[in-house]
Order: sequence, then structure tokens, then C-alpha cells
Amino acid sequence: MTNPDAWGETLAECRRLDQEDPLTPLSRQFALPRGVIYLDGHSLGPLTRSASAAVQRTVRGEWGPMIIGGWNEADWIGLPARTAARIAPLIGAEPEETACADSVSVNLFKLAAGALALRPDRKTVLMVESEFPTDGYVLQGLARLRPDIRLKIVPAGELKGALDPETALLVASHADYRTGALADLSGLSQAAAAVGALSLWDLSHTTGLATIDLNAAGADMAVGCGYKYLCGGPGAPAFAFLARRHHAGFLNPIAGWMGHARPFDFEANYSPASGADRLMAGTPPILSMAALHASLDLFEGVAPGALLARSRTLSSLFERLTASVATAHGFSLASPAEAERRGGHLAYTHPDGYPIVQALIAAGVVGDFRAPDLIRFGFSPLVVSRSQVWTAARRFAAVMDSETWRNPSFSRRQTVT
Amino acid sequence: MTNPDAWGETLAECRRLDQEDPLTPLSRQFALPRGVIYLDGHSLGPLTRSASAAVQRTVRGEWGPMIIGGWNEADWIGLPARTAARIAPLIGAEPEETACADSVSVNLFKLAAGALALRPDRKTVLMVESEFPTDGYVLQGLARLRPDIRLKIVPAGELKGALDPETALLVASHADYRTGALADLSGLSQAAAAVGALSLWDLSHTTGLATIDLNAAGADMAVGCGYKYLCGGPGAPAFAFLARRHHAGFLNPIAGWMGHARPFDFEANYSPASGADRLMAGTPPILSMAALHASLDLFEGVAPGALLARSRTLSSLFERLTASVATAHGFSLASPAEAERRGGHLAYTHPDGYPIVQALIAAGVVGDFRAPDLIRFGFSPLVVSRSQVWTAARRFAAVMDSETWRNPSFSRRQTVT
Repeated sequence: MTNPDAWGETLAECRRLDQEDPLTPLSRQFALPRGVIYLDGHSLGPLTRSASAAVQRTVRGEWGPMIIGGWNEADWIGLPARTAARIAPLIGAEPEETACADSVSVNLFKLAAGALALRPDRKTVLMVESEFPTDGYVLQGLARLRPDIRLKIVPAGELKGALDPETALLVASHADYRTGALADLSGLSQAAAAVGALSLWDLSHTTGLATIDLNAAGADMAVGCGYKYLCGGPGAPAFAFLARRHHAGFLNPIAGWMGHARPFDFEANYSPASGADRLMAGTPPILSMAALHASLDLFEGVAPGALLARSRTLSSLFERLTASVATAHGFSLASPAEAERRGGHLAYTHPDGYPIVQALIAAGVVGDFRAPDLIRFGFSPLVVSRSQVWTAARRFAAVMDSETWRNPSFSRRQTVT
Repeated sequence: MTNPDAWGETLAECRRLDQEDPLTPLSRQFALPRGVIYLDGHSLGPLTRSASAAVQRTVRGEWGPMIIGGWNEADWIGLPARTAARIAPLIGAEPEETACADSVSVNLFKLAAGALALRPDRKTVLMVESEFPTDGYVLQGLARLRPDIRLKIVPAGELKGALDPETALLVASHADYRTGALADLSGLSQAAAAVGALSLWDLSHTTGLATIDLNAAGADMAVGCGYKYLCGGPGAPAFAFLARRHHAGFLNPIAGWMGHARPFDFEANYSPASGADRLMAGTPPILSMAALHASLDLFEGVAPGALLARSRTLSSLFERLTASVATAHGFSLASPAEAERRGGHLAYTHPDGYPIVQALIAAGVVGDFRAPDLIRFGFSPLVVSRSQVWTAARRFAAVMDSETWRNPSFSRRQTVT
């Protein structure tokens, strides 16, 4: 048995530090269930009070009384641009370079297909083998559509060296979805540019967490998720970034009417809208987008850098408080040990990861499991406090030391893991 | 001045017929604003009470308390399939042939691109010149991605004759978005099959209105809209149909994880899900989809054929009640004069269509305008009653006879027309 009193940080000290932290009052914006310590904000952000109110208003105050008039009176037609404009400063982009539309997968397809058309003489798309699977699937699908294109897949450390004059496009995630390790967004974007290739970043696991400056990095394109740190709700619309220098030449392969320069003129031929608006395709899901737009209230006035710094403090605290228990029970840290190389979550491998995560959830500590053996604990900086981390570490020790996770009910697989 | 008393149908008679109509009680499912006669259900269906309750439940009863657990506990992961299963009987499809995902534009892209891969030796995509513009834009975008493909655009009447052994795919709308004229879905699907081509139907303007039997017609693929007659809310997810005989060979070009056979195994390579589930791409917008799923309550137990029959009764009544006024004021009927050739809306051309529609909206009759000169009045059979049609005809006469539409305020263009 491990001795919790030897951990070094006390609950009282955590509470004092929480009280002093200027980000702590923002946690009141969440409608969190009682008793739950939610360490899964990297997968689905919790409900915000502003999103709850906005969806109710959109349904009962707009769709109900205005019906079709809502497109003008409630400015639904401007909602994607207004949402994109709130995301733009979080990623170091101008509003005109940012669109809010569709899903990450669909946006990745549009940008990757459009990027290949900007580099017609190059036939290689480069990605890392540890890439988030759906990004790989989308590129595989694109390669079937364009049999002249070759997917070159390399380990993360070999990305820079694998760039060559044949490379049309580099696709990479800012944070590894498994380990949380951050990629060198700036260095890789510039290395891609140096060989004449374009860079396309998946910011799903860092937007709303890390300070991202796409334009300073010289990145060409990006996609990102609306439902993780941005708290837009399950399946919230995604976003896409297209650097201004590509606006003149870029064509969206999914040339739907919402990306047309004049959608309500019902012209026979497609003319792209200006800027990143051309990345839109069909009619956007207004109810889901209203939730995302409202949740972006969270980031108004938050100092750049404060979010990731707090998240790293929390993950380091958790790591320290659980270190002896984790070692004693066969956990291996899969994330970088140095906090400054990490995004917002901490990952461990354990051969019994699945039932352990289920037992932790039953004990009120919600992390998640990724096949085959990965356990992730997320430290969404606006959601989680130091005192919660302290309590989560206690519960972690209790679950492991008492071996409650061996109860067979925790091994029963659910649809979503 | 026209004489309303000469119209032949009285308001009292309309009210009596409304009372006798078994579909009338269904109108109580809508939360319609008072005083408004809503003739725009072909553009955006009104809020249903079940959608309003479902969205509230999804936000406050699921996302709030369950957060990530909602994917299993509230079965968000099964929501697209459950929604598709409710749409399938409305289009003559099996649930396994139907998917609910993304927008009409994105689904059209997936199916058209996938269809071309099923007919690799054929290079022509055939469509009508009066096709809904976004469908044309999407096909133009696909042709840019596949420069070997030729778009062949012909007048509606020449579609059948233009099919030839070079044709890979016929793309057509079941109802013309301008005139409401219905295409011969069965005859054209069979004519396409006879030359070895595939057929892809846009059912946006008929789903939830007409009796559609895609399998009896021999259609190969279809897409359709969730926010018109299905009342799924602004920008509701769309649906897609893929006939069972194509399930083995069809690959979704936008190969996102939700269309993977085992999305939560996080495998490196893409394996398509069984059946139409492979048409999914990214994570679906759950809040918007919950509204669509709930509004489909409307169609439970409604006899096939009853909806379009009632809609045609209403449009014919409107046409008769307004005929003399319309003629006197220079309206031309753009829809087929024979009700049995029409879908759910009636269209007129008028050089002053824009201000006339605005003046009618101000008078409580909501129709819509499509550039350059088209006025559409929709008769969503569950939303509109005979007595409302009678009153709408009165207001139409008042607006035209008093020329209120000449007020310059009605000519001021809004973003969405």
C-alpha cells in the first residue's frame, strides 16, 4: 500500500492556490455534474452556461417565432463568420482566414485536395505514422481519388528529414492525440515552405489550450475541432484556416453554395466567396453552431499563455501525486516527462487500461481509454482545479490499491470507449 | 379591383373541410407564431414541439450531466443510424441503405465521386440545366478534381435522350426547386440503368412530402435535406441513400472515422463500415441531429400518399382563389398547371417579385423569392390548412390591389432572400 500522506502537496495548499488563480472564476461558466472530476476535456468539453442559454434562445426565440426569417433577423447567415472570427485570435489567424463549417474530417479533405491543386507538379503527401487515425483515413481516401498521389508515412521524429522537392503537402497534428506531445509547428511549417511544400495542421487537441500563432509560424492551412477545449458540444462544427496568400488560387473541391460569392443569386456557375468563406460547403447546422459560438465566451479576455501554463501545472501535479502508485501498479508514462513538451493531457499505458478507466469513472474520475492500452487524463485549464487533481489522485490510489478495477463489470465493452 | 366574393370557396367551407381532414390534428405539433400563414415549408420547416423538447433534453439532460458519457448513455453514437432509420421508410429504402450525415452538398460530393469510381470507364456526368445551383456547383468542383470527367448539361425534357453508353452518372432533382415540377424518378432511373449508368437523386424538395420508393424505382443513390419538409431545424443534417447492390464496392472519398467499420479501434487503415454507414465522415452535430430525429415524429402513422395529396389540394385551392388577381397584376404561373405534376410549392414569375414577397411577409403571408423573378408559395401539408390558404389569398389580393408592395422599404435587399 502506498502512503498518500507522503505526496508533498496538501489539499489545503491546493485550495489556497486555486483561490489565488485568476482563471478559477471561469470554472463557474460550466454546468458540471456534482461529484465528478472531469479529466476528459480533451475529448468533449463540458456544457457551458452560455451554450445552454444560446441553444434555448436559438430554438425557442428564433427558429420558433421567426422560422425562415431567422436567417436575416437572427443573422444565422452570419453565424459561421461570427464564430470563425472568435476562433481566429485563438489560432493566430485573421477572421478572413478562418471558416467555421462541417467536421474536421470534411475540412481536412477540402484543404488537402485543394492544396494538391496548388502544387500540381508534386505528388507526395507526407504525414506521421502516429497521426490521429481519421486524418490518415481521409488522406487515404483522397489518394484513392487521386491515384497519382503517394502517401509517405514516417515516424514523428523523421518528418523534417522526409520533406523533399516532391512533397506537395505536409499534414501533421499540433498535439499527438495519444501522448499529448507537441509538434514544432513553426519549425515544421518553415521546413515545409523551404522545400516548396504546403503545411496543413490539425489543431484539434490544442485550440483553446495552447497559444497558437499560425501566421507567425508561416503555416499554410489548418483544421481544428469545436467540441474539445472550445466546448462547442457533441459534434460541434469544426474550423478551417487558409492563409491569405492562398486566397486567390484556392478552390474548395466541395463547391457548395455556402462557399459561393453570391449564394442567393442562384447563378449557374460557381464563383468562390472571398477569403476563407470559400471553405464552406452546404448549409451549416445552426443549433450546433449556436452552442459553439456561445461557448467561445470562455476565451474572452484570457491572457495568451495562461491556459496551457495552468494545464501543465495541473498535469504535473497529477503526475507527482500519482507517481508512486502508478509505478507500483505497472503504469508507464506515455507523455513527455517534461511538461513544456506536452499539450493538455497526460497519457499512460497499462495492459488493463480499459477496466481501470471504467473503475475510475465509477469512482468519479472521468478519463478515457484509447485502444490498445492507453489511458488519458486531460487537464482542461478552465474546467479542472488543483484541489480536484488532488482528490483525483486520491481516488486513483484507492482504485489501484483496492483493485476494484478487477470487478468483471468494468471489462464489459461499451460502444464508445 | 377584383371581387373576392366571386372566388367560389368560402372560409366557412374551408374550415369545415379542415375539421374533417385526418391530417389537421398534426398541425398541433408545430409551435407556429400567431397571425402568420407560413407558406415557406419548402425552404425551412417550422419548429416542432418534439424538436424543442429534444434539444432541451440533449443539452440539459445529456451533455450537461453526462458530458462524454452521453455517447453511450444517451446513445449519441447511435443517433445518426436511428435518424436514418426514421427517414428510410419515407424514401422507400431500407435503414441499412440510408445514412444521416453532413449537408446535401457534402453528401452529393461523396456519392458522385464514389459513383465515378464504380464506373471507371465512363467519363460523362449528366444533369439538367435547371438543377438546384449547389448541386451543379458540387459537380463542377468534382470535375475540377477529376479533369477526365465531362459535365453534360441539358434541358429537363432532353435528359432521357441524352443518356448514352458514355454516361457514368445521372444527377437529377426529384422536384425542380424553381417550379416544383416533379421528375419521372422511376422512368429516368430505369433509363439510366438501361445504358449502364448510375442514378443519383436529390430528394430535398420531396422528402416528407411525396411518396418516394427509391428501391421500386431502381434508383442507385440519393441525397436529401433535413430542414425542409422534415422540419429538422436550420441547417439540419442531410441524408444519403446507397442501394444495397452497391454496398460491397462503394468507397466514400471522404473517409472519416465515423464511416469506419471500427472507429474506436483507432486502426491505421481505413475499412468501410457496413452498408450506408460508410457514407458518414466526421463526428455528427448531435444537437442539430437531435432536433431532426425528434421532428420525424411527424411522419409516424401518416398514410403514404396523404401528404402530397393534401399539399396539392392546398396549392390548387390557392391557385384558384388567386387566379383573377394574379392575372390582373401580371403574374405568370411557373409551376405545372396540372396539380399531379407538382411537388409541394407553387411558383410564379413577376418582374417585381422581390418587393411583392416582402410586402406579403409584412401582411403575414410568408412565401419566398428566388432570383431573378420567382415567387414561391409552399404548401407543407402538415403546416398549412385550407382556411389559412383562404386567408392568404385574401391578403394576397389586398397587397396587390392596394399596391402596398410599391413602398420602397420592401425593395431593400436583405442578406438572405
